[in-house]
Amino acid sequence: MKILVDTMGADKGSYEIVKGAVEAKKLKKIDKMVLAGDEEEIKKILSQLAVDDKDIEILHCSELIENSDEPALAIRRKKDSSVVKCSKLLKEGQADGFISCGSTGAVLAAGTLIVGRIDKVERAALTVVIPGLKSPTIVLDAGANMDVSPELITQFAIMGCSYAKVLFSKQAPKISILSVGSEEGKGNNLVKEAYKLLEASDLNFVGNLEAREILDNDSDVLVCDGFAGNILLKSVEGVAGSLLNLIKEKLMSSYKAKIGALLVKDKLKSVKTVLDYREYGAAPLLGTKKAVFKGHGSSDSLAVKNGIIQMVDFINNDVIEEISSKMEEKYGRE
Amino acid sequence: MKILVDTMGADKGSYEIVKGAVEAKKLKKIDKMVLAGDEEEIKKILSQLAVDDKDIEILHCSELIENSDEPALAIRRKKDSSVVKCSKLLKEGQADGFISCGSTGAVLAAGTLIVGRIDKVERAALTVVIPGLKSPTIVLDAGANMDVSPELITQFAIMGCSYAKVLFSKQAPKISILSVGSEEGKGNNLVKEAYKLLEASDLNFVGNLEAREILDNDSDVLVCDGFAGNILLKSVEGVAGSLLNLIKEKLMSSYKAKIGALLVKDKLKSVKTVLDYREYGAAPLLGTKKAVFKGHGSSDSLAVKNGIIQMVDFINNDVIEEISSKMEEKYGRE
Repeated sequence: MKILVDTMGADKGSYEIVKGAVEAKKLKKIDKMVLAGDEEEIKKILSQLAVDDKDIEILHCSELIENSDEPALAIRRKKDSSVVKCSKLLKEGQADGFISCGSTGAVLAAGTLIVGRIDKVERAALTVVIPGLKSPTIVLDAGANMDVSPELITQFAIMGCSYAKVLFSKQAPKISILSVGSEEGKGNNLVKEAYKLLEASDLNFVGNLEAREILDNDSDVLVCDGFAGNILLKSVEGVAGSLLNLIKEKLMSSYKAKIGALLVKDKLKSVKTVLDYREYGAAPLLGTKKAVFKGHGSSDSLAVKNGIIQMVDFINNDVIEEISSKMEEKYGRE
Repeated sequence: MKILVDTMGADKGSYEIVKGAVEAKKLKKIDKMVLAGDEEEIKKILSQLAVDDKDIEILHCSELIENSDEPALAIRRKKDSSVVKCSKLLKEGQADGFISCGSTGAVLAAGTLIVGRIDKVERAALTVVIPGLKSPTIVLDAGANMDVSPELITQFAIMGCSYAKVLFSKQAPKISILSVGSEEGKGNNLVKEAYKLLEASDLNFVGNLEAREILDNDSDVLVCDGFAGNILLKSVEGVAGSLLNLIKEKLMSSYKAKIGALLVKDKLKSVKTVLDYREYGAAPLLGTKKAVFKGHGSSDSLAVKNGIIQMVDFINNDVIEEISSKMEEKYGRE
């Protein structure tokens, strides 16, 4: 197995990426790991980490795609960026997977336009895994496709199901659709139509899921259009962040509270893990012909390590082949 | 001024509603207050509260619309329900406002089908006021209209603006639209089209607002379709609820944490107010010909009191007349 790791464009810089990658390689059987980015910088980090592994290669890239770049334009113009170079290697079959914590838009565009979609997959979807209170939920589409058809929602469900089987080791993952009420018939036209298609499918479809249950539900996969998914995920992130910051501030606002804060510190820290994206590290762009994983922009080495482990499992378990065969089952061969 | 208060269908029962109503009447100039519901029960509560006010009347209603009832059907069939009877009185001009903590669907249906819409208003919208960390935000549509046009979004903006002027005492409230990124061009087709219309309007439109900023932004009004609005509001509610419960649980899980919890109790309590719907108590259904306010199902007397106060201000400040004249300005007279 050969995997490509993008060391560019992450909020915390290349060091955390390289460190996480090196740690993952120690834990998983990876024949070759290619670190894409600034050669000088990567060499320096590897020497800081005292890594001497002939199976870790460096792919020098001179251009950086920024978050502010228009994604489709950037991947056409910045040919020497890590995202473009790695995507091309994937496309040419020279590697098995690519993980990046850089611009989401660029990874999405490169995944679709360079790596390419699985036959019959209309659009690739961005996934996110929410740890939750009881059990984790894979949410897709998390923001790749703003305007979608009911049919495309069923494709998200099929792809999410294939991924959930591997990630959660379940035979028949529970699939639900994001809506404004739990009963059938609640929702906008898109949801109502998609509900019917999902119900008629052979998936383990369990119905609507309300946004208020996002941290406390037993669905394995939650499907939605990319606009609604993004609203959901960003409000989870925003509310959790705002509340935890406010709590911190309040606990520092008096002498009495400060003493109390010392005593409850560990417990409050454990609350954070419920929302800790680092647990799953990264999530796949589902629907591409090869594994493309996207980590959070602010990933640290733990998140990168876990993300690479997820990707290796994803590749070893042939998730893409499974999606491909499900698509063929549904739509027939080209 | 004569206002109608629905004492039926609230989660905590009639007592909290009657208590809140009586308290509001002491604070605001209300000529007549009509309590709609079970006469025996209301009489009992009034005597418990030792209220003897000849300007508080009782309107006996024998039927209850439940949350599980199909709203449009229920308001046609349950003629002796508080929602239907009060809406008819409003329509006939026998009262100035109606507030209910019962079935949202029924209040919406009655507001639209019985009370009726302001001329040129395509659809009435449900509003919610989120207190937030910095300043409150009026969100609409909060779930009344699942599939909307860009034009309707601009109507929400006009109506929300008229309400914000009164609620926040501002001359030119800041209006934003819910989207997946802050820059123009981000979002689904609906948002992109509505953005153009809002930008071309004479409203103080400040652009897109991301869901992650929902508790920490300086917009006065946030517009969106009812599906996205509902996802946003329920995820705010759900995440906040899940997190605060989890914190409580964690703080009770060890002896050390319990002592700490005692010391930080007041501070944690103050965090809750950031999300406390009771501060504004209730929010209007915007677009109806008369004031129709909807309180949270689990409202206590404080929420009811504040809700009635908001409604009295809404009526005294002629918000409906302002919306009506803005609609005429925009679309001309019938």
